[in-house]
Amino acid sequence: MRNFTFHNPTKIIFGIDSTNEVGKEAKTLGRKILLVLGQGSIKKIGLYDKIVKLLKDEGIEIFELEGVKPNPRVDLVRKGIEMVRENNIEGILAVGGGSVIDTAKAIAAGLSYEGDVWDLFKYRKPIKPTIPIGVVLTLAATGSEMNGNAVISNMETQEKLAISSPYIYPKFSILDPKNTASVPLNHTLYGIVDILSHVFEQYFDREEDAILQDRFAEAIIKTIIETTPKLTENPEDLKARAVILWCGTNALNGIIGVGKEQDWASHAIEHAISALYDIPHGLGLAIVFPHWMKYVLDAIPHKFANFGRNIWGLKGEDDFEIGLKAIDKLIDFYEGIGVPTKLSKVGINDEKLEEMAEKATLFGPIGNVKRLNKEDVYKILQMCL
Amino acid sequence: MRNFTFHNPTKIIFGIDSTNEVGKEAKTLGRKILLVLGQGSIKKIGLYDKIVKLLKDEGIEIFELEGVKPNPRVDLVRKGIEMVRENNIEGILAVGGGSVIDTAKAIAAGLSYEGDVWDLFKYRKPIKPTIPIGVVLTLAATGSEMNGNAVISNMETQEKLAISSPYIYPKFSILDPKNTASVPLNHTLYGIVDILSHVFEQYFDREEDAILQDRFAEAIIKTIIETTPKLTENPEDLKARAVILWCGTNALNGIIGVGKEQDWASHAIEHAISALYDIPHGLGLAIVFPHWMKYVLDAIPHKFANFGRNIWGLKGEDDFEIGLKAIDKLIDFYEGIGVPTKLSKVGINDEKLEEMAEKATLFGPIGNVKRLNKEDVYKILQMCL
Repeated sequence: MRNFTFHNPTKIIFGIDSTNEVGKEAKTLGRKILLVLGQGSIKKIGLYDKIVKLLKDEGIEIFELEGVKPNPRVDLVRKGIEMVRENNIEGILAVGGGSVIDTAKAIAAGLSYEGDVWDLFKYRKPIKPTIPIGVVLTLAATGSEMNGNAVISNMETQEKLAISSPYIYPKFSILDPKNTASVPLNHTLYGIVDILSHVFEQYFDREEDAILQDRFAEAIIKTIIETTPKLTENPEDLKARAVILWCGTNALNGIIGVGKEQDWASHAIEHAISALYDIPHGLGLAIVFPHWMKYVLDAIPHKFANFGRNIWGLKGEDDFEIGLKAIDKLIDFYEGIGVPTKLSKVGINDEKLEEMAEKATLFGPIGNVKRLNKEDVYKILQMCL
Repeated sequence: MRNFTFHNPTKIIFGIDSTNEVGKEAKTLGRKILLVLGQGSIKKIGLYDKIVKLLKDEGIEIFELEGVKPNPRVDLVRKGIEMVRENNIEGILAVGGGSVIDTAKAIAAGLSYEGDVWDLFKYRKPIKPTIPIGVVLTLAATGSEMNGNAVISNMETQEKLAISSPYIYPKFSILDPKNTASVPLNHTLYGIVDILSHVFEQYFDREEDAILQDRFAEAIIKTIIETTPKLTENPEDLKARAVILWCGTNALNGIIGVGKEQDWASHAIEHAISALYDIPHGLGLAIVFPHWMKYVLDAIPHKFANFGRNIWGLKGEDDFEIGLKAIDKLIDFYEGIGVPTKLSKVGINDEKLEEMAEKATLFGPIGNVKRLNKEDVYKILQMCL
């Protein structure tokens, strides 16, 4: 196990109707708050009206930045930074999924930087202390509600890049399963793939002694595989929604990743795909991950054998063989819940594979299980076709 | 799953030689620091000298409160409170195991209360904001390094009671496996029993939908059962020490307990035993827990069956039967590593069973799986003989 520092100060308020706490909690952000919102779904379900009322009851002055899209754009981040500066806004409340939260984080990070916010992503300029962020989560997927990461897309340069900083952890996150209940089934499932993919990035690495973290990772995977069928059967099952919601947060709040080497090549590859094709992040991950797994299997067959034995109950002596079967089990699971695992099934052909491979390796080779250069990524993308 | 708030702001600095960070971290507590210490073992291993040098290098003025014993006493807490008040001390650094940390927390809690500190324990007076605490942990057991709990004994009244408050979470905890390597094997094993017992208190309850938390709990149990034999074979195996250390922290930092009903009757019973007999807490728990399990098995046989199937790999249809076998497996595990599971083996006879039962139920019935009154506790203690 590697040395690590773990410090996750986000306060989680979890449960049915925990949304009612938003006024009291938002007050700790300041009196003038920027509400960052998606494309209107929270208005349809009445959540917008409810939150605005609760904030106003606390005497909070509200400013609104609406229209965050999946694969959130830096343009809107720039607009948000301007709004905060012009109106002396004291805190940001993100109401939505990962894209909305990441937009809020990028606004906060950009605020305390004198130049253009994209410099923080592209040139990895240091992020400084900034105004606080609160979250009301509406989608189980990203984990962004309890970490210091944000991923933003720049459509002009066709880049999708990440930042990470202790200063952009949400101060609080309200996780009310009711707020996730109206997410359509396909996006619910993409969220579930996203959660599993976060686990895989940390679980499949070359670290040998982070035993508890690996068992924790398996706990999340098993819980998701056990719970997902309940949601495909009844998407309004709030108990199952609650379980998946809590899995999503724990998949990326540090507890399964501390002391591990981790990999994250598959995310870089997916970011390159969705920067060019704008497909849902979770869908892209369902396509990339199994093929990345097959490509690196021979480097850590014993890890994939753990996946086979501890998750899928596979028996046998040969680690490589068990690992290969386990990857096929994962493909079966994805296809079984209606999530495709091939680029061709989402209308992407081999036209831009080279451009994607180029983009994914923009900063040099990616991943750790195997260091992947442009040629490796190209080969994995070919396997994805 | 129940609604919950999870907010654990403790910063963990984990790994070999992380002790070197103590100066920099302690400086964030203040310039005048009370060092709370045990009975001298840290002087023998050179840790005391190392820490004092690192603190002095940062210009920190040190005051010392030495002599914390297992089952730490309120008398020393009172002495600490006096020292802090007299010298305008700004922060507390606990260097030791759970007893030392709990003493530091009780001092901090008592400081912001005008009356006698024992009122906080006995009459559950509210705990107010207070000075910050830092930790250098030397024993994997308590979990106190990453929570807001403290347990203190009053030898005068022969009571052992707990407090809990958001204001006494350590600001930071340094977890250096090297600092736990010189703990004698028997106390290492009592620590391991303590960790498992914390997991059991949260795992065996009546909550049905906290699926991830239960899988997390099983992850800790499995990791400990897998790792403990490495330590009995070679107590200086630092990799195994690191794994156990991280298990101890996660067993009681909230992640396996949030959203659960939990039980905690066995701890109340053990506290009554060690208030009268001053045996190590972990040893007491190894005796109480298996018999509590047998006493409540019929209330939640499916939970004990999970324990049997997911931990011990037991097969079969009958939950009660699997549960009973699983409890025997636990007894075998404890006896196999040389930890007794009977009161008679540690020289305790039936003389004070009634007094213990009385003490354990001081505030009324205990536990949740079954609400245990004095008579129930008496019966469990008889089973422990």
